Amino acid sequence: MLSKSQIKLITSLKQKKYRQQHGFFVVEGIKTINELLNSNFVLHTLYTTDSFNINAINEVIISNSDLKRISFLTSPNKALAIFKTPKAKNIDESGLIVALDSISDPGNLGTIIRLCDWFGVKELVCSKETVDCYNPKVIQATMGSIARVNVNYVDLAQFLKASNLPVYGAFMEGESVYLKTTLEDGIIVMGNEANGVSKEIESLISEKISIPRFGDFQATESLNVATAAAVLLSEFKRR
Amino acid sequence: MLSKSQIKLITSLKQKKYRQQHGFFVVEGIKTINELLNSNFVLHTLYTTDSFNINAINEVIISNSDLKRISFLTSPNKALAIFKTPKAKNIDESGLIVALDSISDPGNLGTIIRLCDWFGVKELVCSKETVDCYNPKVIQATMGSIARVNVNYVDLAQFLKASNLPVYGAFMEGESVYLKTTLEDGIIVMGNEANGVSKEIESLISEKISIPRFGDFQATESLNVATAAAVLLSEFKRR
Repeated sequence: MLSKSQIKLITSLKQKKYRQQHGFFVVEGIKTINELLNSNFVLHTLYTTDSFNINAINEVIISNSDLKRISFLTSPNKALAIFKTPKAKNIDESGLIVALDSISDPGNLGTIIRLCDWFGVKELVCSKETVDCYNPKVIQATMGSIARVNVNYVDLAQFLKASNLPVYGAFMEGESVYLKTTLEDGIIVMGNEANGVSKEIESLISEKISIPRFGDFQATESLNVATAAAVLLSEFKRR
Repeated sequence: MLSKSQIKLITSLKQKKYRQQHGFFVVEGIKTINELLNSNFVLHTLYTTDSFNINAINEVIISNSDLKRISFLTSPNKALAIFKTPKAKNIDESGLIVALDSISDPGNLGTIIRLCDWFGVKELVCSKETVDCYNPKVIQATMGSIARVNVNYVDLAQFLKASNLPVYGAFMEGESVYLKTTLEDGIIVMGNEANGVSKEIESLISEKISIPRFGDFQATESLNVATAAAVLLSEFKRR
């Protein structure tokens, strides 16, 4: 049985304001919860309809209807956990870094975190305008990869100015990434879904790169930012 | 002012059953509507809060609150149009073809249609279990690309059996796509989000390919199907 205050706490965590105030975030689904339990993340409470086969001290068994009340999903997935929001580690500037300039869609951010994990990118640097990585929709889309990618929110312009790494940026009019003979470890900047890379950040980019369009139709929209990130990470890593 | 029957028709088109019964589907947002108006799609009615600067005979000016009543979006985007569902053209087997084995997420299907458009893939072949491409969430995610990609729903096993083209399939344990010296025009099969390619379809695949994981962590989930499609299409097209 859930108390009113438990329900109130959980539902408040949908909002960034309350996530920051409480220092907690919500994770749903057994698979992702297990990945976080097996990482450095610290569990606050695990609400589940069936006991997990692990030493979860803070486990509370609840009914399906209680889970439905607290879940952010249309089809709740057996368990919901509250974790403590970790403090991001300092940015390690060795290896490839992905930087996001105001990504606003939670699904895109989650997919990019999952991509970073797949392609061995350990550092994701986000402008302060980028959607919060502890947003439940982001967490859902990361499929557990949030446990393995270090996400920092910074003043992106200052970060780029302070770094000595080459700064690549994804632009419609950039040089074809396929024609680049060398792609060094550095920072790859991906811009906002609607507006691309902002003017201020653009001035800090050393190499503009693009993914050529093969379709005949000039009307074709740019690629979705997460699929563009997939292609670029593939190009940086396959060489 | 909208009539009750208009509202009833529009809201019914959220469901595949009624889309098929009426032969219509819904498109929202000026950009996508314009792309479809400039294609072979046939407009039934355009509901808009501001007149479009075009010869839209079937244009109905409505209030913002009426648009809110009929829109499928949380933030309606100035216009909503009903188009006639076109009959898919026969599949042209020249060039690269993407085939989907039971893709269930509308956002993934929409993103894959947009990717096909970008990479010049004109034919998308879907198993009958794949989500309907006239689902409003799919249309939204295509950003107008639905006008330029021919989507057919077929018995996928029969289609693959009947084709003489090489059949590539995305598998976790496939050969690294980066190591392939040749990737011919043919069919690339992408499997379901949770279960991958089904057993029946797997037996019809001539070459299993994979995108290598660069991260250290074995726990990392497979890539999202749309981002995997992005990397594979990039690899087929860049050579």
